[in-house]
This record gives sequence, C-alpha cells and structure tokens, in this order.
Amino acid sequence: MTDLTDTQLAELTEARSQGVTTLRPTVPALEALLFEPIPVLDHGFIRVVDYMGDDSAVVQAARVSYGRGTKAVSEDRGLIRYLMRHWHSTPFEMCEIKLHVKLPIFVARQWIRHRTANVNEYSARYSVMDREFYIPEPQHLAVQSSDNKQGRGDVLDQDTAQVVRQILMRDAHQNYSDYEFMIGPEEKCGAGLARELARMNLTLNTYTQWYWKVDLHNFLNFLRLRADAHAQYEIRAYAEIMMQILRAWAPITAEAFCDYRLGSFTLSAQMLKVLRRRMDGLPVDQASSGLSKREWQELWETLA
Amino acid sequence: MTDLTDTQLAELTEARSQGVTTLRPTVPALEALLFEPIPVLDHGFIRVVDYMGDDSAVVQAARVSYGRGTKAVSEDRGLIRYLMRHWHSTPFEMCEIKLHVKLPIFVARQWIRHRTANVNEYSARYSVMDREFYIPEPQHLAVQSSDNKQGRGDVLDQDTAQVVRQILMRDAHQNYSDYEFMIGPEEKCGAGLARELARMNLTLNTYTQWYWKVDLHNFLNFLRLRADAHAQYEIRAYAEIMMQILRAWAPITAEAFCDYRLGSFTLSAQMLKVLRRRMDGLPVDQASSGLSKREWQELWETLA
Amino acid sequence: MTDLTDTQLAELTEARSQGVTTLRPTVPALEALLFEPIPVLDHGFIRVVDYMGDDSAVVQAARVSYGRGTKAVSEDRGLIRYLMRHWHSTPFEMCEIKLHVKLPIFVARQWIRHRTANVNEYSARYSVMDREFYIPEPQHLAVQSSDNKQGRGDVLDQDTAQVVRQILMRDAHQNYSDYEFMIGPEEKCGAGLARELARMNLTLNTYTQWYWKVDLHNFLNFLRLRADAHAQYEIRAYAEIMMQILRAWAPITAEAFCDYRLGSFTLSAQMLKVLRRRMDGLPVDQASSGLSKREWQELWETLA
Amino acid sequence: MTDLTDTQLAELTEARSQGVTTLRPTVPALEALLFEPIPVLDHGFIRVVDYMGDDSAVVQAARVSYGRGTKAVSEDRGLIRYLMRHWHSTPFEMCEIKLHVKLPIFVARQWIRHRTANVNEYSARYSVMDREFYIPEPQHLAVQSSDNKQGRGDVLDQDTAQVVRQILMRDAHQNYSDYEFMIGPEEKCGAGLARELARMNLTLNTYTQWYWKVDLHNFLNFLRLRADAHAQYEIRAYAEIMMQILRAWAPITAEAFCDYRLGSFTLSAQMLKVLRRRMDGLPVDQASSGLSKREWQELWETLA
Repeated sequence: MTDLTDTQLAELTEARSQGVTTLRPTVPALEALLFEPIPVLDHGFIRVVDYMGDDSAVVQAARVSYGRGTKAVSEDRGLIRYLMRHWHSTPFEMCEIKLHVKLPIFVARQWIRHRTANVNEYSARYSVMDREFYIPEPQHLAVQSSDNKQGRGDVLDQDTAQVVRQILMRDAHQNYSDYEFMIGPEEKCGAGLARELARMNLTLNTYTQWYWKVDLHNFLNFLRLRADAHAQYEIRAYAEIMMQILRAWAPITAEAFCDYRLGSFTLSAQMLKVLRRRMDGLPVDQASSGLSKREWQELWETLA
Repeated sequence: MTDLTDTQLAELTEARSQGVTTLRPTVPALEALLFEPIPVLDHGFIRVVDYMGDDSAVVQAARVSYGRGTKAVSEDRGLIRYLMRHWHSTPFEMCEIKLHVKLPIFVARQWIRHRTANVNEYSARYSVMDREFYIPEPQHLAVQSSDNKQGRGDVLDQDTAQVVRQILMRDAHQNYSDYEFMIGPEEKCGAGLARELARMNLTLNTYTQWYWKVDLHNFLNFLRLRADAHAQYEIRAYAEIMMQILRAWAPITAEAFCDYRLGSFTLSAQMLKVLRRRMDGLPVDQASSGLSKREWQELWETLA
Repeated sequence: MTDLTDTQLAELTEARSQGVTTLRPTVPALEALLFEPIPVLDHGFIRVVDYMGDDSAVVQAARVSYGRGTKAVSEDRGLIRYLMRHWHSTPFEMCEIKLHVKLPIFVARQWIRHRTANVNEYSARYSVMDREFYIPEPQHLAVQSSDNKQGRGDVLDQDTAQVVRQILMRDAHQNYSDYEFMIGPEEKCGAGLARELARMNLTLNTYTQWYWKVDLHNFLNFLRLRADAHAQYEIRAYAEIMMQILRAWAPITAEAFCDYRLGSFTLSAQMLKVLRRRMDGLPVDQASSGLSKREWQELWETLA
Repeated sequence: MTDLTDTQLAELTEARSQGVTTLRPTVPALEALLFEPIPVLDHGFIRVVDYMGDDSAVVQAARVSYGRGTKAVSEDRGLIRYLMRHWHSTPFEMCEIKLHVKLPIFVARQWIRHRTANVNEYSARYSVMDREFYIPEPQHLAVQSSDNKQGRGDVLDQDTAQVVRQILMRDAHQNYSDYEFMIGPEEKCGAGLARELARMNLTLNTYTQWYWKVDLHNFLNFLRLRADAHAQYEIRAYAEIMMQILRAWAPITAEAFCDYRLGSFTLSAQMLKVLRRRMDGLPVDQASSGLSKREWQELWETLA
C-alpha cells in the first residue's frame, strides 16, 4: 500500500509510458524502478525520480578519458574496488540520484543531518499536512537498552505494546483534529489560524515528504551510517531500500561498498599490536592491551 | 527569564570569571555578551559560546598580508564595503562564531536548511526532553494571509486567540505526559519504551537545543533570509538577536550588510528600462513594462 | 580546431550514435550538444558529458508534487522567475550537469575556487602532460589597468604584443622540452625523474583538463561571477560558452537569470535615498549622499 | 630561514606582545606557536594565525551541555576516542583553526582539492609574485616508480640530480625574468603587460601563499590523506607540521586520531574471512581468498 492518490497514479502511468531517446548513460535496471514508490514503514515510500551516471561514469572520471572506455569489465571492477579501498572519493561524486521520499518527521530530522545533499521539502507553511502518522508495529516497540544509552533492548510484551500503540494513535489523531480546527476557515467555525502556526501542534510521527538529491559518494556515506546496526530502526528501513536501489544502479560499486565498508572491520593501532602478539603465539590480555573492555570483546567476536 | 538551572547558572558564573590571556584577536563588546543567554520567544535563548576573528580579520584576509595591517580604520571600512558590494565572500568566511540556541523544533527544522554550518543537537535518543513548549503570545497568533499563501494576515480576535492557546497548551502537555508514561520505568508503572521511539509523540513546538557554528559569510546569508519580513516571525525573532550579536562582533561588516543587503533593492533588467524612461520623462505603464503587477507595485512603493 | 585525437573522434562518433530509451526528463536541445567539444581560447574546449533535469525539474521541486505537473508553461515561467527573484535557490539545485573542460592551469586555479562542485582532473602524477599552451591573441594582450588594480587597460601596440607572444611561446616550449628530458627514460638519455616532480617545471599556461559536475544553482553562481565584465577575459570566454549551454538546457531559467541577475542593478540603502530625493525633484550631490565617487558615477551611468 | 621581511618581523613581534584577556577556551601550547612561521621545504612555512576551541569543545558539543563539564579528564579521553572510533564527526567540527601557508603552486593545486575549508590566496592579478621557487634537495629527487604509477622510486644518482636541479633553477629564473620584463612599466623598457596575463609565464614551483581556515574534522581528513605514505612528499612535508600543530592544539584528539586512523588497518570482508580461517588453523591461500595479490601481501605484512 503506497498511498498515492488516483491523480498521482494516473500521472505515474503516463510518465512510465513516455520513453524518449537519449545519448546519456542509461541503466536499464534502474529505469525499471523509476517513479514507482517502494513502500517503507506503514505509510512511507522511496521513489527514484531521476539519476545521472553509473559504474562506468566512476571509471571514466577516474581515468579522465574520452568516451566510455574500451577496457574489459573486469578491469573496471578492479579500478572501482581500488578507489573504494583507498578512499578516493571524487570519482564516485560524478554520479547523482534524485529520490522522492515520504517519511515521518522524526526520521526526516535525522536524515537532514547529512548536509551534502539537495532537499526540497513539502511546505507546511504553504500547504495542509495529511492525516498520516507512523505507528510502529508491535515487533518494533522495544524497551530502552540498558547497556547502550541510545538504543533499544527487548521487544515490549504484547499488552504494553498495545497500550503504547493506542496512545500514539490517539494523541496523533487528537492533535491532527485540533490542527484541522485551528486552520479551518472561520465561516466553517474554524479558527482561521495561519498554517505556519497551526502546524506546531502536530506530532513528530506525522509524515512529510521531500525530493532529496545526492551524489553517489554521499549516498554511500548515508548508507554507511544508516544501514548500520547502530542506526535507529526507522531510518535503517529507508537505508535498506536505498541499498537495493544502489544494487540496481551501480552493482560493481555496491559490491565494493559491501566488501570494503559495510562488511569491513577497522583494527586500531592497539588492536593491531594485540593481534600480532596473538599470531606469534604470545599471551594477550585486555588489561594490558590498551583496549577498552568493549573494544576487546568486539575484536574477538569479529574474528571468531 | 532564561530557563537555566541553578547548576548551569553556577557554571556560567564561574566561566565568566575565568579570563585568561590570549594573543588572538579579541572583541571586548562580544566578550561582554559571552555565555549569557539572551531570551528569545517564551522559553528560548541564544548564547554566544565562542568566536574567532573580527572586522580586521576580514580586512587581513582580503589583503593576505602579514600582521593586522597599519592602514587607518577608514580604509578598512572602505574595503569591507567594497567586498560586500561586489559579493567577494571569501574574506568574510575567515571569521567564525559558535552559538548555543534553545528553540522550538519547528523553528529548528527551518534553521537546519542552512547547510553550511556545524550542528550538534540535544539527542532525544539518549536524553529525556524537557516539558517546555512554545505557546505564541496572542499578538503573534494571526490568520492565514489571503494574498500571500505562506504568510500571516490580521491578528486573531482575543477570544479565538485564547481558544488556540488553550488547545496548543493542552495538546502539548497531554502528549508530553504520555511521553513520560511511555519512557517511565516499568517498576514505576511506565511502559519502559526506548526514548528514540517515545519522542515521536511530542509536538513540534517542543523546545530542543543545539550548538550551531557558522562562518561570518554564512551568518550573513542566514540573516539575509531570516531577518527578512517574509520569514516566519518565530525564526525572525532569533535572527533579530543575531543581528545584535553581529553589531557587537563586527560593527563595520554589520553596517555594510545593512546598506548593501538588508536595506538594498535590486532592479531587474525590466525595472531598469522602466526607470530610465521615467527619468527621461517618457510615459511608462505596467502592461508594456514586462513587470508583473506585484513587481510594478513594489518598484514604485520602494522609490516613493 | 578542437584538438581531439583520431581515437577520441572515433569514440565520440560512436557515442553519438548510441541513443537508448529512457524515462528520465530529456532535453533535445542539449542532447544535440552532447559530447561535442565547443572550442574555447586557442586549444581549450567544453563538452557536455551528462546532465539531469531541466526547467520542469525546478518547477517540480518547488511544488514537491508528483509527475511533471499539468500547469501551463506560462505558469511555470512565472514560478521560475519568482524563485529567481526571491533567491529561493534549492529548486535550482535539483538539476545537475557534467562538463569535460580543457583549460590553461591558471584558469583552472580561478575556476576551482568555486567549491560546491565535483572535480576529477587529469593527473600529472600519473600521466604525461601534453605540449599545449595558451598563447593569447594580440587583441587580448593588454596593459595593466591604471584605475582598476586587478584589470586590463588598452591593448598592447602590435610590436610589443609580438614580443610578448614570442616570449610566452619560447619559455613554454623550453620548459616543456626540459620537462620531457627530465621524465625521459634513462635508456634514452633522459633523467628518469618522477612525473610528480618534473611537472613543477611547466608554465601556468599549460593546458590541463577535468570533469566538472555542478548543480544548476551553483552553475548560475559561477556565471554570475565569471560572465561578469570584472572577470578575467580567459575565464569569461569559458563562462560565455556555458551561458550558451544554459540556454539550451534550461531556457526559462536562463531568461530569468539574465533579467534578475546578470542584467540587474542593486541599489544600496544610500542609493535608494538619493534616488527618492531625485524623483521628488530635490537636489542631490555626491558629497552628502554617503556614496563613494565610484558608486555615485555607477548609479547615474546605470540609470542614464 | 623563514623569509619574512623586516616589517613583517616587526609586526610579528608586536603581535606576540599584545596579549589581552578573553573568556574563550584558550590553549597555552598553541598560543606559544601563534604567529611564528614554521619552515617547510626550502622557502615555505605554516603559521597558526587564529584558532577556536580545543579538546574540551569536542566533549562539550558531544554532551551538548552547559559550561566546560566537570567530568574527569579520563572520561573526556574515553568520549573522544569513542567519537573517533565510531566516525561521529560533528563534535570535531566545533573547533576551527586558521593557518597562513606559503607553498609552491603545484602543492597548492593538490591542497585546494580539500573543498570543505575557507581560502584567501595571494592574488597575482593584483600583486607581483616574488622570485621564489621550490627546488628539491637531491635526496628528494627520485625516479618514476616502476610498480606504483603515481609514485617515486629510488633517489637519482648525484650527477643526474645536479643536472635536474640546474634545469629547474635555470628555467624558473628565466621565466621569472621574462615575467618581470613583461609587467615592467614602459618607461623602464618593460612591456607594461597586465599582471593577470604575465603570470601565466611562471612555473608551477613558484611560491604562493594563502590563509586557510578549516574545522578540526576536516583538518583530520586532510591529515589522513596527506600525512599518508602515498601522498607526494612535498605536501606530506606540510602535513607533518600540521600533525605537530594538532598535538599542541588538541592532544587527546591527536592521540585518538593516530590510534584509530593513521595507525589503523581496515580488514575488508574478504580479509576477515581469511583471517578467521587462519585463526582456526585452517589453510588459506591467495588464489581462493578473493583478495588481489597486493591486498594479500599487505594483509600479512601488516600482521607480521
């Protein structure tokens, strides 16, 4: 369920039938996704609206050569992996993608902290917000983590989850009804209040939407932080869809990103010292390692 | 009333007494403001926490010369005005200021759109939000403007204003109480919900706070857009305090900014043509001018 | 004469014949320019390599609406002009263009000061530079301006121009020959020096090349500063080609940009005061106006 | 030998005696370095001109708390190390430093690729360049590397080094003399050419200078890439001085940076797999590892 209106669906159908000819690099797998809203959370979505460049554009920029290159794909793969591994970021900046995203305001507030992107958000000064709120599924309602101050622990028991969901629904709807009253025209017994003021009564789980445009390098940066297990589940749900989009758009870059970023582990100077002793068969212990208990634990869990 | 706790006030008093010696450029008028919260709206404030550079640093960068220059102040003023007039922005980037700001979330969402700045916001994943909301004074509660789709018109009548304020207060407090219940520990009959989830029940007029650091050039850009009459009153209230801070920090830059930006008017190519005819005593009229009705009106109002 | 090698020309011809179908917004007038080097100066060029978005994308972002909008073109024009006039820059950030540029190093050094863009430059650490230098035409060889400390005055007399051109040619070629010797392999009696070192012997009029990608907003910023009469002729020559590209890419935006930026004039607060007195038939004079002599002169020349 | 003129030295002495009182965070170890040019290469230098914030400002931003915090230093250290390890970059953006740097143009061209910084460079359109060139010491003149396409190999033999140095000196001086003639006033038998044109005859080892201002996060990014063994020696020489400045400015951050960035090693997903097998005593070999030969070699060299 993607929450597009009938008019929007009609426009979408029309757009999808209007293929024209271009000389620009084109990615069939991404064209297949174009414009279609991919559902996220209960009412959100991501739609790819436009894009520029592909894996070859990364290679081309790295080579600063004419045309699309005549080298075999295997060499392109090697070059992209080399660039990723050595943090050569500028060639990845040569690709760009534009998404239309519908998301709860509290997620938008985390998202916007990625500053190297272009944003146009739905304006609640100009327009009326919709009555749509994010209400987490019971399995995503968890207690405050006891060991990680900003994370979640166990899932709530069923009854408590039900109570929480009812509170969230009731408050969001009550506040929205009051918002509607406040902006309602006086002749219909509303208060006639300016929209830019009335909106302050809405809750942070109200859905908003925006166009978000970013280059491939900063797209990967977003994924590195938001597809991570430490990220809040709600933004991670968007990052996971973006990971799928990445695989369609630039599969070689996606693979290199998984190998050298998401699936990698960085050994600190102290960890290196410990590991070298261990490889030499020498005794190692946390107390003398210079590692915190958490780092010590993480090191051996990762290598297990 | 600035809403600092006793501990914070004690820390502030201590900080203000700890003057040390520095060789860096120092601005006595800004030192006098340092750390003190300047109240904005009902519970917000701006505090200058740190700064770097002054009017002379702008001049120094423009001259890329050693030392602080030996030229007379009048020449410095002439140079700064020249830079401002010709949009030479890089010398203004050589100064930096760091503010601690307390502001309603819906204002924070407008503010953060200025991307060329550094931000650290109070984390509602990690910490508990305070029970503090922005409730506009009756004189700031206005109806939706009929001619400007994103602005305010006349002030609400007294009774309606009272009703609106009561709604805003009631809803904010109700939602906060439910937030408190949801994050409350189970042993005290709370739901024990993770903070990162419970916060979604808060309203957009809840106060948050952040450290915001920006260079002088982007500080001026912020003021140009947010000290403007088209900006929403609530963010303009912050911009006006920042204008005072600017005058203390870099008075020559502040004067040039008022003359060449805030108090200036840009004539479009069409306006120039109309004005030239008018100065020559030739007849002019809106229909043939290429100006929209609004531009035509604005031109003559500005020159009246 | 565009200085492409035969291989490059072959690749170009192939690229131009490989039209594929896309659902993305496509601009026929820009497709017609795609890949073709447009000559600039004696050996430089600009090639449009890729692009994303068009005038409609600006409108779409401003409306944050689905599809490409059904409004009449006249309304789109009105909206784009409104955005331009009121410095609403984010919708223009939704379009992107990628250029391949060949340019003298001293021009590249001015160009790179526009930081909000993506760049991949030909690497003189990795590759050998070509023997190509910018030698100005006689009509572009001018004396130091006497009233503008960073500009040009009258054109050099023919004989002096000839001498200057000969010096520039002789020195560039001599330095290049020495560069060639230094990087030459030892078995061929060269010094075998690393390229990253030998390049330091080249002159600043040596041609380099890069891929440069920028959004439409920052493209306009570049033009505002570099298509201006105060810009050095050599970078202005590139800006003028970019102005042509803009007209093909986003004609409505181009028109609004000319009316509200390039062809506009900003009246300072002091100028406004003077002009109001003048319109009222009151006497005005420079001494009491608060305007510098240069500003006074510029005001009346602009309005004449 | 730092190449300051007598006037500059006098100004410097005066500046260093003008300590005033400030309430801002102040770093005695950095104050001791303030204004003094630290020599780099043969004629270059770095001078710290201004700064803002310190290790405590990083902590303060992370805590978004009032005052400078009352926690013990050991906790601050733990927090800074945690931030560094988990790529939490925004608190490091709260500190800022301004350097005055004199450097060869070809180094400036590498340096400027770090875009997230503020720059004001000495203008060769406005001013006359000095007759100063970087001529590498014989021990820094090396042959092109045979295995690394953009690096250096063995040092040149003494005779060849001498020849190379003489070429570099001769060409730079010849070109400078011609530059001088071209900008020379006509009454003194010069060509009177505009400076913005004549400069194109200079070589890329000519020294320029600029003010460069950057936040601590981007300062570290610069060091990560430029203090690295893969960076060209000439820019690394600057990075090494900046590393010293970092240690004076923010010693806890400097330590964390060395442990988690400079001295760290990132294991890719494939490397992790290989290492886990190895720790389990299972056989591993390059061919089946998914690692390139270079990665395989680097892995075992690092762990040896």
